[in-house]
Amino acid sequence: MYKVDLNCDMGESFGQYLLGHDEEIMRYISSANIACGFHAGDPATMNKTVKLALENRVKIGAHPGFPDLQGFGRRNMAINPQEVYEIVLYQVGALSAFVKAQGGSLHHVKPHGALYNMAAVDENLATAIAESVFNFDPQLILYGLAGSALIKAGEKIGLATASEVFADRTYQNDGTLTPRSKSNALITDTDDAISQVVKMVKEQKVTSVDGTNINIKADTICIHGDGPNALRFAQKINEVLATESILIKSE
Amino acid sequence: MYKVDLNCDMGESFGQYLLGHDEEIMRYISSANIACGFHAGDPATMNKTVKLALENRVKIGAHPGFPDLQGFGRRNMAINPQEVYEIVLYQVGALSAFVKAQGGSLHHVKPHGALYNMAAVDENLATAIAESVFNFDPQLILYGLAGSALIKAGEKIGLATASEVFADRTYQNDGTLTPRSKSNALITDTDDAISQVVKMVKEQKVTSVDGTNINIKADTICIHGDGPNALRFAQKINEVLATESILIKSE
Amino acid sequence: MYKVDLNCDMGESFGQYLLGHDEEIMRYISSANIACGFHAGDPATMNKTVKLALENRVKIGAHPGFPDLQGFGRRNMAINPQEVYEIVLYQVGALSAFVKAQGGSLHHVKPHGALYNMAAVDENLATAIAESVFNFDPQLILYGLAGSALIKAGEKIGLATASEVFADRTYQNDGTLTPRSKSNALITDTDDAISQVVKMVKEQKVTSVDGTNINIKADTICIHGDGPNALRFAQKINEVLATESILIKSE
Amino acid sequence: MYKVDLNCDMGESFGQYLLGHDEEIMRYISSANIACGFHAGDPATMNKTVKLALENRVKIGAHPGFPDLQGFGRRNMAINPQEVYEIVLYQVGALSAFVKAQGGSLHHVKPHGALYNMAAVDENLATAIAESVFNFDPQLILYGLAGSALIKAGEKIGLATASEVFADRTYQNDGTLTPRSKSNALITDTDDAISQVVKMVKEQKVTSVDGTNINIKADTICIHGDGPNALRFAQKINEVLATESILIKSE
Repeated sequence: MYKVDLNCDMGESFGQYLLGHDEEIMRYISSANIACGFHAGDPATMNKTVKLALENRVKIGAHPGFPDLQGFGRRNMAINPQEVYEIVLYQVGALSAFVKAQGGSLHHVKPHGALYNMAAVDENLATAIAESVFNFDPQLILYGLAGSALIKAGEKIGLATASEVFADRTYQNDGTLTPRSKSNALITDTDDAISQVVKMVKEQKVTSVDGTNINIKADTICIHGDGPNALRFAQKINEVLATESILIKSE
Repeated sequence: MYKVDLNCDMGESFGQYLLGHDEEIMRYISSANIACGFHAGDPATMNKTVKLALENRVKIGAHPGFPDLQGFGRRNMAINPQEVYEIVLYQVGALSAFVKAQGGSLHHVKPHGALYNMAAVDENLATAIAESVFNFDPQLILYGLAGSALIKAGEKIGLATASEVFADRTYQNDGTLTPRSKSNALITDTDDAISQVVKMVKEQKVTSVDGTNINIKADTICIHGDGPNALRFAQKINEVLATESILIKSE
Repeated sequence: MYKVDLNCDMGESFGQYLLGHDEEIMRYISSANIACGFHAGDPATMNKTVKLALENRVKIGAHPGFPDLQGFGRRNMAINPQEVYEIVLYQVGALSAFVKAQGGSLHHVKPHGALYNMAAVDENLATAIAESVFNFDPQLILYGLAGSALIKAGEKIGLATASEVFADRTYQNDGTLTPRSKSNALITDTDDAISQVVKMVKEQKVTSVDGTNINIKADTICIHGDGPNALRFAQKINEVLATESILIKSE
Repeated sequence: MYKVDLNCDMGESFGQYLLGHDEEIMRYISSANIACGFHAGDPATMNKTVKLALENRVKIGAHPGFPDLQGFGRRNMAINPQEVYEIVLYQVGALSAFVKAQGGSLHHVKPHGALYNMAAVDENLATAIAESVFNFDPQLILYGLAGSALIKAGEKIGLATASEVFADRTYQNDGTLTPRSKSNALITDTDDAISQVVKMVKEQKVTSVDGTNINIKADTICIHGDGPNALRFAQKINEVLATESILIKSE
């Protein structure tokens, strides 16, 4: 039987500021990436979100980002590998404490936003993240963009990895995402997006923007938790994957 | 043989801002309370300070404080027990990650500044801290003011505790510290301060400001790491304690 | 003709985090208190909110708060008068820059949350705020709770003041608000709330929880900008005040 | 008579953290760039530093930086021109409030660290800064690297500008600074550094690393306020400039 992990960024509220539909979405995913207080999240939100994930038997990952709350961790920063190592370790430890205190165990780490994107192409940053995760707990799974420098760095150091693909993004011939600056970067039709996922899971292939069939490793699919259609998409992909006999389950 | 723990607040630098004489002082203490990034400290400083402690075989404690870098965690905040539980857990987890990644293990937790003072007298805050520490790791030792609500809360939940005394502060008949607002709050003479420590350790007694001999539990002595005389005092108390056959060692 | 100012807290979004219904509410008020980046708001939000206020010919006030984004400035802090002077001056200056750059002029200052409440009863903090506002610009109007220490401090230093009343809060015989801990603190019925406002404006009186008619100075009414009924309430009070021939206008 | 401005970054302390030798250095400079709370500085430090500058009749400039206290504003951030406009305006306004409250007037704006460096070469960021300064007060002087995009943007919008040169940095044939990565980037000998300054002021020329005499506009010289030799250098350059009949004075 086929199997794929559905992951979603969670716990992105901050103080009075609420973001996302965590309670509803949590029912439709198999792993949650919980913000750790740097780009989003705060101790109260982390505590609450960990509880919600445990109640829903959803695997818990740390979702560390840049120290940039105003920019939501989406602005690149010229941060060196040593600094990246340290901020990832700090955030993973902080999130891990809430999991431990509630009797659960941390499952994975997925960098957020600009850190995710930079680590996808910068070998030194990728290695710093992989070392940080490995030194904290070598049993953790490192989530990263399929084919990225981060996945390679994780494999090299001896971590289990999960190659992430996107339902609603198109791919180029070399397996990279079509940049958002291009008009054909996004798949806006829900059925098309889900079909792409089914193909990636069953055939480990995706049709590029040029119409070519290319190989892709699809261990985990990123579901967006915000936006007006987030919940509906989560429900729909659950239905279709069930119909296609694809089990939603993390490693 | 007598035995006492010497603890010191460490890792209070932040980015470009350097504070304290950690490298020198670390040689003269048995346990270090390392700031966790809320009132002082940052991931880089935490990483470095943990390394320094491990090299000196000094026991490592988390030193969580209020989220108030400008006030150095010394301004009271009307924060409720649930929020205290969460910010302590967050910080303990963050610091713990650096210890774990370097192969060490966390030894204790000591709240900082206003949080320490508030938890000394507020049972609800004290309980919140004790629960946070216990839920994270019931083997940790909770450091608190001798005779305080925090020590009681720690004992009640089943944590080992370390009652902290001060070399350079005077005591009142009821065993509490003379408030800093009083002119006789501080012991400014080094020899007097050290004599008070020796008496507290050997006799478990202290002479109050009224001249009365009162009982005091002295598991650990707080050494100040900043100030012009910090290093000299640390050296001196080491010499005297050796002469008095008092071993400097944490639990 | 009668006249009253309707004020509302505005610009409380932060980065990705959206709060309030500023665009809709702005049409129904005569003065806006714009958050200055400490408890809420950020430079982008401030810039945008100032623009919105100018477009709607709404008077602009700075709304300084405690440096506590997670607590939304609602947690008391043990901050001394000098520090209060400085954080108010900083925030008033920052907000003022956006007003100046867009060709407007700052109209008033109203402290936020815990700072507002503390300054209502603490003469020293109230004086610090009044001095800060006066030293920045003696033409500014100081908004504060009717009958509070803040209003008195403003008058004493020579500032124009605006005494603020609440539509949806009940009053005690001494003219203070019924504490929120009491069951009768809030007026939940919209018509009752608006009737109270009309009476306060026309008669400068309010019926206390004991049924006594007491004097109250009602220069400005605080409208809540968040909550599901904020917009409807703003519209309704505009309609009723028009019917009652009460002009909505700030000084 | 020749004339040059000596400027120095000031007010870089934060809370308990002290940096620089502001009191001593302030006696030897003609303009101070005061940190505004984003990369360094806090409201208390700003208030105190403004006072110190006014007492020493030193011209006061705002010194805005990136919101990155841990990195001291020295890490590049992928911040867009609109965001730069807003954070500069916010910080200039905040600093300006302290100056205004003390009866002084703001004189100039000089961006800090990574923002200074990015604005030296990025026309869009430079324009954003120039617009921010101009919109706040068109009488302000914009300080920037001699020959930089920032100076050009300032001139274009109609601001007075001050071209900044460095005593202790070498120059390349094209008038740009030798990158710090090169071994010959710094002039370590005090006499050589001061001689370079004298030549730049008197001849508006500098000898490049290749030995070529090149043109340079030297309106203002940056003095470093930290480091062990900061004070001595400040004294020495004052002496030599006096001997050379060069008046130390800002525009």
